[in-house]
Amino acid sequence: MDSSIFSSLANIVGENNVLIGEHVESRFSTDWTRQNTPAPYAVIRPRTTDEVSSILSCCTANNQRIVTLGGLTGMVRGAVASKNEIALSLERMVDIEQLDETNRSIQVRAGAILQSIQDHAENHGLHFPLDLGGRGSCTIGGILSTNAGGNRVIKYGMARDLVLGLEAVLANGEIITSMNNLIKNNAGYDLKHLFIGAEGTLGVITRCVLKLKPVARSENVALVALRDFQSLTQMLHYCDEHTGGQLSAFEVMWNNFYRAVTGLPHITQPLPANFPLYVLIETLGGDAHHDKKRFEIILEECLNKGIIENAVIAQSSKERKALWGVRDAIGELLSQLRPFAPFDISLKISHIESFVNEAQKLFSKNWPNEKVLFFGHVGDNNLHIVVSAPSPKEVSAIDDAVYSLLSEFGGSISAEHGIGILKRKYLPISRSEQEIRLMRNLKKTLDPKGLLNRDRIFLFNT
Amino acid sequence: MDSSIFSSLANIVGENNVLIGEHVESRFSTDWTRQNTPAPYAVIRPRTTDEVSSILSCCTANNQRIVTLGGLTGMVRGAVASKNEIALSLERMVDIEQLDETNRSIQVRAGAILQSIQDHAENHGLHFPLDLGGRGSCTIGGILSTNAGGNRVIKYGMARDLVLGLEAVLANGEIITSMNNLIKNNAGYDLKHLFIGAEGTLGVITRCVLKLKPVARSENVALVALRDFQSLTQMLHYCDEHTGGQLSAFEVMWNNFYRAVTGLPHITQPLPANFPLYVLIETLGGDAHHDKKRFEIILEECLNKGIIENAVIAQSSKERKALWGVRDAIGELLSQLRPFAPFDISLKISHIESFVNEAQKLFSKNWPNEKVLFFGHVGDNNLHIVVSAPSPKEVSAIDDAVYSLLSEFGGSISAEHGIGILKRKYLPISRSEQEIRLMRNLKKTLDPKGLLNRDRIFLFNT
Repeated sequence: MDSSIFSSLANIVGENNVLIGEHVESRFSTDWTRQNTPAPYAVIRPRTTDEVSSILSCCTANNQRIVTLGGLTGMVRGAVASKNEIALSLERMVDIEQLDETNRSIQVRAGAILQSIQDHAENHGLHFPLDLGGRGSCTIGGILSTNAGGNRVIKYGMARDLVLGLEAVLANGEIITSMNNLIKNNAGYDLKHLFIGAEGTLGVITRCVLKLKPVARSENVALVALRDFQSLTQMLHYCDEHTGGQLSAFEVMWNNFYRAVTGLPHITQPLPANFPLYVLIETLGGDAHHDKKRFEIILEECLNKGIIENAVIAQSSKERKALWGVRDAIGELLSQLRPFAPFDISLKISHIESFVNEAQKLFSKNWPNEKVLFFGHVGDNNLHIVVSAPSPKEVSAIDDAVYSLLSEFGGSISAEHGIGILKRKYLPISRSEQEIRLMRNLKKTLDPKGLLNRDRIFLFNT
Repeated sequence: MDSSIFSSLANIVGENNVLIGEHVESRFSTDWTRQNTPAPYAVIRPRTTDEVSSILSCCTANNQRIVTLGGLTGMVRGAVASKNEIALSLERMVDIEQLDETNRSIQVRAGAILQSIQDHAENHGLHFPLDLGGRGSCTIGGILSTNAGGNRVIKYGMARDLVLGLEAVLANGEIITSMNNLIKNNAGYDLKHLFIGAEGTLGVITRCVLKLKPVARSENVALVALRDFQSLTQMLHYCDEHTGGQLSAFEVMWNNFYRAVTGLPHITQPLPANFPLYVLIETLGGDAHHDKKRFEIILEECLNKGIIENAVIAQSSKERKALWGVRDAIGELLSQLRPFAPFDISLKISHIESFVNEAQKLFSKNWPNEKVLFFGHVGDNNLHIVVSAPSPKEVSAIDDAVYSLLSEFGGSISAEHGIGILKRKYLPISRSEQEIRLMRNLKKTLDPKGLLNRDRIFLFNT
C-alpha cells in the first residue's frame, strides 16, 4: 500500500479520523463469524457524504481498494478488510436527519444504528418494523447493503421493502442522490434497488429515507406444538388467511432446537418437549381487545380441526417476552457449540421437510457426534441450521455437503446473510452463469477498477 | 428499414407471425392516449422465450430497433412503434405455466392478461391482489415494465412488491433466467429490479413468478365526506392504525370530481354533493363478522372525534360495487372531456393540499372555461388530475404549467404510468443529472446499440 495516500485522506477527514497501524482498535478486525483476522492496516472515518465522495475519488486516483464497514455484525466476512484494503468506517455518520410524522418517513445517515432508528420512531409514536438480533450494533447501511430481513418479514417485508430513497457514492466519487420520499414514484429506473443487497460492491450507501408504520395497538404471541410439517404448512396458511394481514412472525423450531434451548438454565419450557415441531406465532394489529379474542379463536379452531396439538398463549408482555426468549436463546447456545457451521438458506415450503430429513441423514452418517439445530422463519422460506464441528477445519466439509444437498432442492444459499467472501464459491448453486455474468457487467459499469468491496459476492476478474 | 430481415424473422416465428404493411391490424397502432398514429410497419409475434432471444439476436446483427408491445393500455406512448421500429408483440405468450398452492406463487409468460391471472388464482382459492382499470387487456409484462400499482397499493404494494422472479432477454439475445420462487433470497444482486419499471429499455421480460395471497374473508367499503384535507390526513392515519394491516384502498375525490361523476345518469349519489372532499375507504381482512363490526366502530369513532362529517357503509356486495362505481366512473367521464391533459403525479401528503390549491388557481387564471377533476389514491402519494383542453395543441401548454408547478413541490412527474415518450422532456423535474447519467450508463451496458424501446424515458444519445 502506497502510504502517501494517507496525507491526502487526512486532508479530507482530518488526521484524527485516519487511523493507521497500532491506532486501529481491535473492534475493526472481525465480524460476527468471530474468525480471527489481523486488524485492517488503516481505517478512515468520514462524517459527510461529501467526505465519502472525496475519499473515493482519491482512492480511484490511486487505485486503492476500499472496504466499507457498518456495524460488523455480518456472517460472511464481507466487511472484513484484507491487507490490500483501506477500511471505510461510517461510524461517525450516525445522524437521524429528519422524521416526518405526516408522511411517515425517517431520513438517516448510513451509519445510524438500527436501534437508534427504532427508538427515534417510537419517541414520535411511530414504528420502524425491521428488527433483528444485531439491532444494538448493526447499521442501516449494512442492513440495506445485505437487504436483511429479520423476524417480521411476513408482515413488513425485507429491508428493500422499507426503503423509499437512498443516496450512494460511486467508486469515482460521483454522488447519486435518490432521496425519494414517495411510495409511488416511477420516474425512470428505480436506482435504489441497484445498491440494496449489493453488499457494498456497487457504491457506498451514505443516506436513506425509510418508511415508518403506525405502532401496533395489539400484540399477540403463542407457542404452538405440531405433529408434522404438513400440519405446520396448514397452520401457516390458516393463520395467514384468518388474521387478515396481522401475521407478523412464524418462527419454527424443530425438536432438537427446542430441547436444546429449553435445557438452558434460565429458559422456561412452556410446552412439553415431546413434539416434533414448535411454532412461535405473533400477530400485530389495530385493536387490543378484538385482536386478542380473534387470536384465541383462531388457535382454538386450529386445535379443533386437529391442525395443532397444543398451544400456550401469552397473557402479558412478560409472558410474550418469555416465549420469544425460547426462540432468541439461540444466541447463547451458539457460544457452547463453537466451532460450528451456520446456515442461512431458503427453500420452497413444500421442500423444507424433505430437505431437513435428508440433511439429518447426512449429519447422522458423517458427523454422528455433532449437535444439529434446525429452526427458521419458514413463513418467508428461511431455514437456519447450526451444526457443531469437530474442528474449525471441518466446517468447510460440512458447508460442501449441505450446499451440495441444497442444490438438489433448488434452494438459495443465502436467505439474508449475503454472500460476502465465505459463500462466494457456492454462488453458482443458486445463480446461473448468465446471471453472474450480468452481475459482473454491472460491477464493471459502476466500479470499473474494482475498488469497492472487491471480490465480495464474485471474483472481479475471472 | 432493410426488408431482408423479415425472412430471417419468419424463419424464427413462422411466416404467419410476421405481419407486414397492410397485414398489421389497427389494434397495434395506438395506446390508451388514443392519439392517432400510423400502424407499425411490421409486427413479430413470438411464442417462446427462445424465439424472443433469436429475434433480438437477429435485430442486433441487423442494427434493427424494436419496441415491445404488451396490451397497449399505456398512457405515455412508450409502446407505440415509430417508423424505424419493428413491433414485438407478446400476445401469443399468454400461458399460465404453473400455480403452486403450497408456496402460493404463480408462474406465467409475460403476455398473460392481468384478469386471466386473477381468475386463475381465484379458481385455486388464492388471490393475485394487483388490480387496475385495464385488467381485461393489460399484460403482466407491461405491468412489470411500468411497475404499475393500481387501487390496492397501501395493502399489497406496487407490482415490484409482488414479483418473486423473472426472466428477461437482453438486446444481444442472452436469456437471463431469474425465476426465483422464494420470499427471502439474497444470493447476489437481485437482477429482477433492473427490469421492473425500466419500461422495456433494458431487456424484454418474457416470464415471471408472482406472489399469491389468501382470498380476503371480509371486504368492507364506505364512502366518507370530509371538511378539509387536514381531517383527511387524520382519517388516513387513524384508519391505518386501527385496522392493523387491513386498509386496502383510500381513494380521494375532490368536490369537482364527485359532482361530475355523480352527475352521470346511472351513478347514484350516496352522499350530498356539498362537501369539499370524499374518500372511498376499503378494508380486506380475515373474518367477515369481526371485521365488519370493527370497520363500523372505527368510522363511528372518526365521526365522534369530528374527523369525518358523514359516511355511508356498504351493506352488501351490490352496495360495495355501487360505491366503487363512483370512483370508477372516471373512465366514462374522460370520453366527454376529450381533448384533455391527464396527470399521474405524486407528492408528499403534506404537500397535496397546497398543490391542489395552486393548481386550481393556475387553471382558473389560464384556462377558466375548462373542466378540472382532482382525485387520487393519496394513501400512496398518488394524485390524478384531468383537465379538458380547448384544443389538442393546448395540452402541452397545460403540461408545461402543471409540471412547472410540481417542480416547486418536489413531486414526481410519474406515480405509475411511466415516462415513455410523452413525459421524457419533464424527467429532469424529478431526477437529477447524475441519476439520469447513471440510467444512461445502465442502458448502454445492457443494450449498447440502443435497440430496445430506444429513446423511451431518456434520449439514448445526447
